[in-house]
Amino acid sequence: MGSLTQHPAYVALIGHLKEAATLGTTNAVLGWDEQTYLPPGGAEHRAEQTALLAGMYHQRMTDPQLGEWLATLEEQLPPDASEHDVAVWVNVRETRRRYDRATRTPRALVEELSRVATMAQQVWVAARRASDFSLFLPWLEKMVTLKREQAQAQQTDEHATLYDVLLDEYEPGMRAADVQRVFEPLREELTRLLGEITASGRRPRREVLQREYPVARQRELAIRVAEWIGFDFERGRLDESPHPFCTSLGPHDCRLTTRYDPHYFNSAFFGTLHEAGHGLYEQGLPPDAFGTPMGETVSLGIHESQSRMWENFVGRSRGFWRYCFPRLQEAFPEVLDDVSEDEFHFAVNDVQPSFIRVEADEVTYNLHIMLRFELEQEIIAGELKPADVPEEWNRRFERDFGLRPPDDAQGCLQDVHWSAGLIGYFPTYALGNMYAAQFYRAADRDLGELQGLFGRGDFTPLRRWLNEKIHRHGMRFRAAELVRVVCGEPLDHRPLIDHLRRKLAPLYGLQAVTD
Amino acid sequence: MGSLTQHPAYVALIGHLKEAATLGTTNAVLGWDEQTYLPPGGAEHRAEQTALLAGMYHQRMTDPQLGEWLATLEEQLPPDASEHDVAVWVNVRETRRRYDRATRTPRALVEELSRVATMAQQVWVAARRASDFSLFLPWLEKMVTLKREQAQAQQTDEHATLYDVLLDEYEPGMRAADVQRVFEPLREELTRLLGEITASGRRPRREVLQREYPVARQRELAIRVAEWIGFDFERGRLDESPHPFCTSLGPHDCRLTTRYDPHYFNSAFFGTLHEAGHGLYEQGLPPDAFGTPMGETVSLGIHESQSRMWENFVGRSRGFWRYCFPRLQEAFPEVLDDVSEDEFHFAVNDVQPSFIRVEADEVTYNLHIMLRFELEQEIIAGELKPADVPEEWNRRFERDFGLRPPDDAQGCLQDVHWSAGLIGYFPTYALGNMYAAQFYRAADRDLGELQGLFGRGDFTPLRRWLNEKIHRHGMRFRAAELVRVVCGEPLDHRPLIDHLRRKLAPLYGLQAVTD
Repeated sequence: MGSLTQHPAYVALIGHLKEAATLGTTNAVLGWDEQTYLPPGGAEHRAEQTALLAGMYHQRMTDPQLGEWLATLEEQLPPDASEHDVAVWVNVRETRRRYDRATRTPRALVEELSRVATMAQQVWVAARRASDFSLFLPWLEKMVTLKREQAQAQQTDEHATLYDVLLDEYEPGMRAADVQRVFEPLREELTRLLGEITASGRRPRREVLQREYPVARQRELAIRVAEWIGFDFERGRLDESPHPFCTSLGPHDCRLTTRYDPHYFNSAFFGTLHEAGHGLYEQGLPPDAFGTPMGETVSLGIHESQSRMWENFVGRSRGFWRYCFPRLQEAFPEVLDDVSEDEFHFAVNDVQPSFIRVEADEVTYNLHIMLRFELEQEIIAGELKPADVPEEWNRRFERDFGLRPPDDAQGCLQDVHWSAGLIGYFPTYALGNMYAAQFYRAADRDLGELQGLFGRGDFTPLRRWLNEKIHRHGMRFRAAELVRVVCGEPLDHRPLIDHLRRKLAPLYGLQAVTD
Repeated sequence: MGSLTQHPAYVALIGHLKEAATLGTTNAVLGWDEQTYLPPGGAEHRAEQTALLAGMYHQRMTDPQLGEWLATLEEQLPPDASEHDVAVWVNVRETRRRYDRATRTPRALVEELSRVATMAQQVWVAARRASDFSLFLPWLEKMVTLKREQAQAQQTDEHATLYDVLLDEYEPGMRAADVQRVFEPLREELTRLLGEITASGRRPRREVLQREYPVARQRELAIRVAEWIGFDFERGRLDESPHPFCTSLGPHDCRLTTRYDPHYFNSAFFGTLHEAGHGLYEQGLPPDAFGTPMGETVSLGIHESQSRMWENFVGRSRGFWRYCFPRLQEAFPEVLDDVSEDEFHFAVNDVQPSFIRVEADEVTYNLHIMLRFELEQEIIAGELKPADVPEEWNRRFERDFGLRPPDDAQGCLQDVHWSAGLIGYFPTYALGNMYAAQFYRAADRDLGELQGLFGRGDFTPLRRWLNEKIHRHGMRFRAAELVRVVCGEPLDHRPLIDHLRRKLAPLYGLQAVTD
């Protein structure tokens, strides 16, 4: 069978997608500038620019011509296209998925969602500041109603719940039940591990992270570390923003941001490793396929697996600190003279229950996620009223962490997601952690002892492996299939638990793990 | 007569213009980022983004609907609309002008001009680096042919020369003959003044400007100086770029750039004053009229008058340095201990013939411009062949400056303009200098002794006056009319000569000027 690559409908489809993508990257430039350099007075006009571009993008992605090209190609695609005409098959499959989602959502609903999200985020900021959930409640209610409507409009499979439809936006092909299947044993194991750690009575010298780390030197170090792991500054940048992020403004233009706290080492250092991990994924996508699904990332969960890989599996590993610690001491003369490599490695692996998700360690982080996953499913199913969220949040937090949040700012008001309409998004963070553990184990098997390489500052083999196995395939595989193809096993919580026990056992004097 | 403000055609016209303007500011964001932060790899996709947005903008500005709304409104506008329905009259007048220019230019020519400009600029960079005019010649020939075609297409008045049509793009309503009328006596006076200065044998201590000025402190000072003169950093920024510029990304978002040379004081300091002068004009436009001619600047010449006002009439004045010099000494401790205020003021007013326009002083600058104005008129008229440009450049340069450029890099290859298709642009720089002198004299008359105010660091009265007289009117008046309205006199070269003689006479011991 010949390829459909030269078929007029396919050529037209790709041209159309690339133009839409160029509008998309233009809007990304607007967004990047908004977060990094926009003066306060510019905010209002920036919103108009963004809305105009988003509208143009939406128009192109719901253009009836797109539907016609898709129908033509779907008719012509042979049954074995997924193996013999991969790019065409993937690009048609994903464009169909997006086209259906977009055209099934009434324009009025899209606009209302956008309007309410803007307002709700503003109210959320004020509510969190005042730690007053009652301010936010009417907007949460509105948002939940709209997200239910959106899910109803987009639902095509009667077996999918409304929450499944929302989750599918961020983790295509994944159902809540699939997530639940791994979350249950994960929670059990993490809770046990946390108990052992607490019982050990051991604690690192956390103050070593809170010494004076001058911002200018932190900035130099952040760039060096991103370079070590292979982030290409000819094709990207590192800037500052209040909320760190990674965004692609084109196939060869990936922007990272971080924030510098002169009295807390972790924030810029691990933040940069995290965002640079996302950046390596973006920089590793096939540039020729830019603007089409074959040049895009699989899912938020797979994206997060790449950031967590470099932040935690590399950046918090013993081998990494063997290489990095002497360089850190040089970068901050006299600051760490009384600290040993072991002590520093222990400090960056401090585990303890805390209220705020984004500050959580590798063990408790996933418990934060599961709490949100539980609640948002019940909210969308209509089983939990928005008004009851604070009480339920606190009750379950105490169940999981043994602590009760002192206020809603440190409880159910801490995250921006729900106010922005990002319901179904949270589980992808924990999925990313599990995917990362599975990928790391497979890479370690394929490449020999990764820790030895890290100890010599050699991060290239891992980066090349990730590129070869994951990045260069774009959206060819769905997340679940990718894990099977790369690791030879389905999604599994155990590699993550093994990773944590293996690392934390010597630090906290826990029972050793057996291979 | 009632206003047409509520007329459906006018409402539609304004909505259309504002949407087009939002595309324009979005493209400005792309351009700003390109000059300041874009990583090298991002250049290619940036060109695609810019071309897409420019195409969309062009499409809106040539939309036949626009022509229909204009025709409807022109039919309805009463004869006295220019006085009694000002905004409608101005917006219709200017939109008609642009619509006619845009629709008269064949799309193929627009695209060819854009393509050739991109290529020609790249070749020009290489040609200037190698100082080899022969590399650039074929591209200059192509560009001249295209610009002639463009002028022919856009020509509506049989009395206008092709060069007039090109000039009109940058200085609406101005003809080459009008320019020539003031350039002739200006050249004569400047040449006489330059002769007297050279004959005086006096020279400032120029090395005081070439001492060690650390970049971080220069940056702080640049921001302070921009604040002194009233640039609003809530509605703007100052960044760095190889070629300094000012651009508006929205009605409340004006971006300036400068460049820092640690061994040359003038470059960032006067560069910032210059760009901030442009910025004050942009920030002074009526924000409600944003996106329509009533919210836009009159012409490049008037724009330049605002930058020159702050760079030269304020920033190189005696009063300014009375206020600034002690602050400068504080900003750069020990660097200027052996320098007096008078010496520093003299140094920033050093006058001497040199090869490069952008480094020229206030006296010789205009001679550089007149040389280009002469040549480009003859080129467009077909009287001077592009191949003969180097010889003619050098011959006339020697005539005007008494020096012969040692090579073409320091001669006819020094400016980007012709390669970018900006023919007819140069005279606006000298017009700006003359307008500035006329405005300064009028302001000085209206406000009392400006130099006294500057000496106390009080720049607000001048800024308010410029806003009241010029900025807030948008495009209400054409340049020539604006000068008459504000100064009570037509365009005139004498205020500029008076300004220069008055300032330079005491420095160079020239014959005093009489009021």
